Amino acid sequence: MTLDAFFNPQSVAVIGASRDPKKVGHVIFRNFVESGFRGHVYPINPNAEEVFQKRAYASVRDVPHHVDLAVVCVPQPLVAHVLEECGMKGVRAVIVISAGFKETGNETAEKELAKIAKRHNIRLIGPNCLGVYDPYTGVDTFFLPRHRLGRPKPGNMAFISQSGAVASVVLDWMESKGYRASKFVSYGNAVDINENELIEYLAKDRQTEIICVYLEGAHDGRRLMEVAKKCKKPIVALKGGVTSDGTRAVASHTGSLAGAAEVYAAAFKQSGIVQAHDMVQIFDYARVLSSCPKPKGKRVQVITNGGGFGILTVDEIVANELEMAQPSKDTVKAIRKAAPPHVIVKNPIDLAGDATVETYRAALDAAIKDKNNDMLVVIALMQVPNLTDDIVDVLEEAYQTSKKPMVIVSAGGNYTELMKKTLDENGIPTFSYPDRAVTALRALWDYSKK
Amino acid sequence: MTLDAFFNPQSVAVIGASRDPKKVGHVIFRNFVESGFRGHVYPINPNAEEVFQKRAYASVRDVPHHVDLAVVCVPQPLVAHVLEECGMKGVRAVIVISAGFKETGNETAEKELAKIAKRHNIRLIGPNCLGVYDPYTGVDTFFLPRHRLGRPKPGNMAFISQSGAVASVVLDWMESKGYRASKFVSYGNAVDINENELIEYLAKDRQTEIICVYLEGAHDGRRLMEVAKKCKKPIVALKGGVTSDGTRAVASHTGSLAGAAEVYAAAFKQSGIVQAHDMVQIFDYARVLSSCPKPKGKRVQVITNGGGFGILTVDEIVANELEMAQPSKDTVKAIRKAAPPHVIVKNPIDLAGDATVETYRAALDAAIKDKNNDMLVVIALMQVPNLTDDIVDVLEEAYQTSKKPMVIVSAGGNYTELMKKTLDENGIPTFSYPDRAVTALRALWDYSKK
Repeated sequence: MTLDAFFNPQSVAVIGASRDPKKVGHVIFRNFVESGFRGHVYPINPNAEEVFQKRAYASVRDVPHHVDLAVVCVPQPLVAHVLEECGMKGVRAVIVISAGFKETGNETAEKELAKIAKRHNIRLIGPNCLGVYDPYTGVDTFFLPRHRLGRPKPGNMAFISQSGAVASVVLDWMESKGYRASKFVSYGNAVDINENELIEYLAKDRQTEIICVYLEGAHDGRRLMEVAKKCKKPIVALKGGVTSDGTRAVASHTGSLAGAAEVYAAAFKQSGIVQAHDMVQIFDYARVLSSCPKPKGKRVQVITNGGGFGILTVDEIVANELEMAQPSKDTVKAIRKAAPPHVIVKNPIDLAGDATVETYRAALDAAIKDKNNDMLVVIALMQVPNLTDDIVDVLEEAYQTSKKPMVIVSAGGNYTELMKKTLDENGIPTFSYPDRAVTALRALWDYSKK
Repeated sequence: MTLDAFFNPQSVAVIGASRDPKKVGHVIFRNFVESGFRGHVYPINPNAEEVFQKRAYASVRDVPHHVDLAVVCVPQPLVAHVLEECGMKGVRAVIVISAGFKETGNETAEKELAKIAKRHNIRLIGPNCLGVYDPYTGVDTFFLPRHRLGRPKPGNMAFISQSGAVASVVLDWMESKGYRASKFVSYGNAVDINENELIEYLAKDRQTEIICVYLEGAHDGRRLMEVAKKCKKPIVALKGGVTSDGTRAVASHTGSLAGAAEVYAAAFKQSGIVQAHDMVQIFDYARVLSSCPKPKGKRVQVITNGGGFGILTVDEIVANELEMAQPSKDTVKAIRKAAPPHVIVKNPIDLAGDATVETYRAALDAAIKDKNNDMLVVIALMQVPNLTDDIVDVLEEAYQTSKKPMVIVSAGGNYTELMKKTLDENGIPTFSYPDRAVTALRALWDYSKK
């Protein structure tokens, strides 16, 4: 069976749906009701007549219709029984949110889940996870209140995470930055479905163009490499930790930590996985890889309205072993014509602190046409008084026109963040600092050579 | 003379104060009037009777009172004349905002400024700069509208920058993050006052406890090293670019770039300057160095409510060659007593996703008392439903009690950022990601050994 039922079920039972707003089962049920999920959703609760104005059932077996997906959030000792009931009802996809299994040393309980699932042909995500968020269908088992945890809009980046904490932070952070998601999975202890099967599924998923992974320990390293090699979409992964079994402190004493890290790095490289080195970098890379065309070379042209930012960018281009482009005569002529004499048309093209939307337009037009460069870094510092907010439209237009990779660098406070969020929501990768932008272009260049 | 007149003048003349809201001279004058500056401020404008309801004078010489500081924002060809007039009026401190000097190849005009200043005993900041922002006195020559460019509240971190672009971004960004500033200077071409004299001044400044520097080219490297060695306050510096004269592209081809970078790194190290490697890191280091006590050792205890974040933090502790602390028996006992059984009391102390303010309080109390650790990284992910917003008070109380360095890691979207801003405004260093937090503790450890 495919994993479709997890992301696009017609009917969902929330087992443990509670009337108490503080309970996980309440938040999950409510999110289904309020998130725009279009299928049926049934609260399962033996102690309530109704939950959130929907008729409750004592058991999933009492639901008078077929159930595609069950979300289990009852206390750990009840999970096995509930899973049996799912099996008898014919539910074939179950997300077990409940914790208290392997992660607390309770291996026996975890093995029992595996057995029950196998016997009933149930596919299972979890236990000890946050489950699934699908912005296209409204499936949302993240039990965190929406005012504390934002939900990204529909897009093309999938994210899967072994860690629930990392998943919740990333989900929240993506929304605040205007990054969009295709599918989002916190898969926890992975008693059945693990990263390998999820990657395989996402490789075929129409909405997903890039797969981001936060991984602590690979469940089957060889299989991961096979899956990754077959996948035609870019995979960006961050590996957290080295051992999954608590021998970390030992590892750090004996120095085997570095060794294991190197093994992972080599395996990622060999199987074409782009390795990120921190959480932010996952999305630095993912945004550029999912939205920019492949560059034809590594000559980077910088356009800036701040000299210092230009210099920091040049430092990064050199440090990342990309090349400094040289503007063509046509570029020089075109910008000279449109801009005041103090503008410097070299690399960086420094439009200076009094740059306007018009000088940006001229510089972008020229640089996009210029055959002497392959990639563009456009620094637009929004604090200056002459740069009106339609700079966002000009950048967007240039981005759509350009057949070269183009990234925006813009840093500052609230006004700037608002402008950047608009750009990112429209799929244009923005960065706060030159190092992040250029490192992402370097990753794009490396990937494009494959 | 000291540089006091730049930061705490009793009377200021804005030469070039304009009635046109789009002009630099208008924004600067208006910022003085509206920012809470308590001294007198005089608009100098030969073509207006009054500016912003204040009587205007045709020349600074017409002002009927003494002028401590003049801010010059007239077009470049008028600057020399205006500076002469300042000299004749007896103004001894002048900030020249106007551009069009050395940075555009106009060396002659710049040398003329130097001559005039010398002849009249004028101390000069600029030209081609944004000048001074002092949150204690309200001096504010940053000509950027307040809705686009935030201004940080009074604090203990001074920042000086050769680049105006970097200065404006940093100012804006500091405000949005809740970081506080003592003094803020964009010194531009440094025809008279450069980084060395500013550092010397700030070394004695009562409000400043740490000095942050963005530097492109040192004006006198040997002097910088002397000044830094004498300075008893920590200096954190980011070096942007390698050459200040446009030979950068050449440098990047011949490989001399890396060489020059190494020379700077060595000089910084030798003179006790803490080197930052990106703009954010300046303030990662500065916040920790200015607010945390010196650690007695390098054993780090991690407290978390998210397993994945704990693991990423351990990775960074090992990578930064700090040590993992081992909780004492008392710590284990105290937390066991206060927290549910699934809480893991090792390192990290994992309070789990259902952590409450009370379990955090117990863990913090125990870890602060524990003699088996020297520094604390407290991860508090705010998305979880049981962690109420008075976690901020608990963290603050712990921070005040602790005689050890303690940093907070918290990541996510808008709700989280609000909580973090509150903490940073109260002087408690927060970080979004483990790598940033731990690297800052490493810098603190290195500095404390000196």
